[in-house]
Amino acid sequence: MGSALSLNTVTVKEKWGLAECIEGCARHAIPGISPWRDVLHAMGVAAAGRQIRDAGLTVTGLCRGGMFPAPDAAGRAAAIDDNLRAIEEAHTLNAACLVMVCGGLPPGSKDLPGARAMMRDGLEAILPTARAAGVTLALEPLHPMTCADRSVLSTTAQALDLCDALGDGVGVALDCYHIWWDPEVAAQIARAGRRIAAFHACDWLVPTTDLVLDRGMPGDGVIDIVGLRAMVEAAGYQGFTEVELLSRRWWAEEPDHVLATMKASHRC
Amino acid sequence: MGSALSLNTVTVKEKWGLAECIEGCARHAIPGISPWRDVLHAMGVAAAGRQIRDAGLTVTGLCRGGMFPAPDAAGRAAAIDDNLRAIEEAHTLNAACLVMVCGGLPPGSKDLPGARAMMRDGLEAILPTARAAGVTLALEPLHPMTCADRSVLSTTAQALDLCDALGDGVGVALDCYHIWWDPEVAAQIARAGRRIAAFHACDWLVPTTDLVLDRGMPGDGVIDIVGLRAMVEAAGYQGFTEVELLSRRWWAEEPDHVLATMKASHRC
Repeated sequence: MGSALSLNTVTVKEKWGLAECIEGCARHAIPGISPWRDVLHAMGVAAAGRQIRDAGLTVTGLCRGGMFPAPDAAGRAAAIDDNLRAIEEAHTLNAACLVMVCGGLPPGSKDLPGARAMMRDGLEAILPTARAAGVTLALEPLHPMTCADRSVLSTTAQALDLCDALGDGVGVALDCYHIWWDPEVAAQIARAGRRIAAFHACDWLVPTTDLVLDRGMPGDGVIDIVGLRAMVEAAGYQGFTEVELLSRRWWAEEPDHVLATMKASHRC
Repeated sequence: MGSALSLNTVTVKEKWGLAECIEGCARHAIPGISPWRDVLHAMGVAAAGRQIRDAGLTVTGLCRGGMFPAPDAAGRAAAIDDNLRAIEEAHTLNAACLVMVCGGLPPGSKDLPGARAMMRDGLEAILPTARAAGVTLALEPLHPMTCADRSVLSTTAQALDLCDALGDGVGVALDCYHIWWDPEVAAQIARAGRRIAAFHACDWLVPTTDLVLDRGMPGDGVIDIVGLRAMVEAAGYQGFTEVELLSRRWWAEEPDHVLATMKASHRC
């Protein structure tokens, strides 16, 4: 595979801010970067945009919009406002997409269909602004183990059904970690076609000791990342492979070692 | 809801053997029991069958068959032999079904389609024996977070597709914990109809701190168990609600307290 590599900044979040991530990508000849908004805000959006451009990096995504469900209308409106700011930031950075982590159940709720309706309502509310800004909203199905507290969007099929309903300006962000187990994964990647806006690689460790912070470096787990990459390429995706690790183990390492390791392993 | 309660013995596995579970069910007026095979073997199958009959309990399932994928042919043959013994045990106990936890990837493998083929091959190998014994094989889709090491059978749709392919003698065991997140859950429960051989209740805690041993007592989490029970009843299931908790927190409690709690809460 000839995919280019992108660093998602969360992968080194414990030791590097965004400026160090940009410098690190240049030092390791990693051509892509995907910032989280916390490090982006810490650096300042305009300054970050300039330094990323000066370094010649492609912004493969901005992480993240979404988190729409909330217990009351004020909370849902605040989420929409925040998403509108995220769209503006993605536009400023010329990001390939705004990655959407759509949110879990509102606290105290057991109403999953209701939370899904809030997700769709939120997406519909921000979509005109995203279209006007030329920012693709990349719906990211998250592993079903995150359904309660992070994402009621759980499968590629569900994300594509939403794309079908919402129309232009919406695509999907496919992360191996979240979709590998799905019996429909091959069929749904083929269905996704040109709507694949991002491809993320990280691995499933056996055993996995934490539901959030124990993702594996590509090659260290059981996911056929090579096979999934081949599927997205067959569907028409020629973009970057972004490595996004939420991992206490890798957060404890020296970031230069992390970048060298992911550069060596992201095609595993 | 008028569903009768069944105790899955794993719920109190740290403190009670099968004889104590049987006595506990009688003491708490819990009419159903579902033994795991370890406690069944420790007591002896014939003795267990007698004591369960004498106590007037319904055996809502035997846990468990399955675990078909293995690195080599000898391993797969051994799994089939073990499943044939489990069918005989389920027959002796007059169990409503043999619950099938189908197994994960063979150690070292990334070949998920291959593991699924091993699962299907194993089921086909034991099905004639199950039919002859009158033992329903209840395919249990397990939460996708168990795909690597416990079950490559992940969704209700996938289980029903297998049922369609295998024919008579196969059904599904639906556990709220494993299926609640599924965007297709309502449609697939309706599709399942009379093939629902068992219904298990336990709850998803927020946060969940362990991928295996942090299941919640019904009512303590975010799953709409009442809604799922209504769906299986609308599909034609009138059987027991079995409470199967793998939980360090509940294993540390006095079993009589656990049984009293589940009796009070299983309709939450």
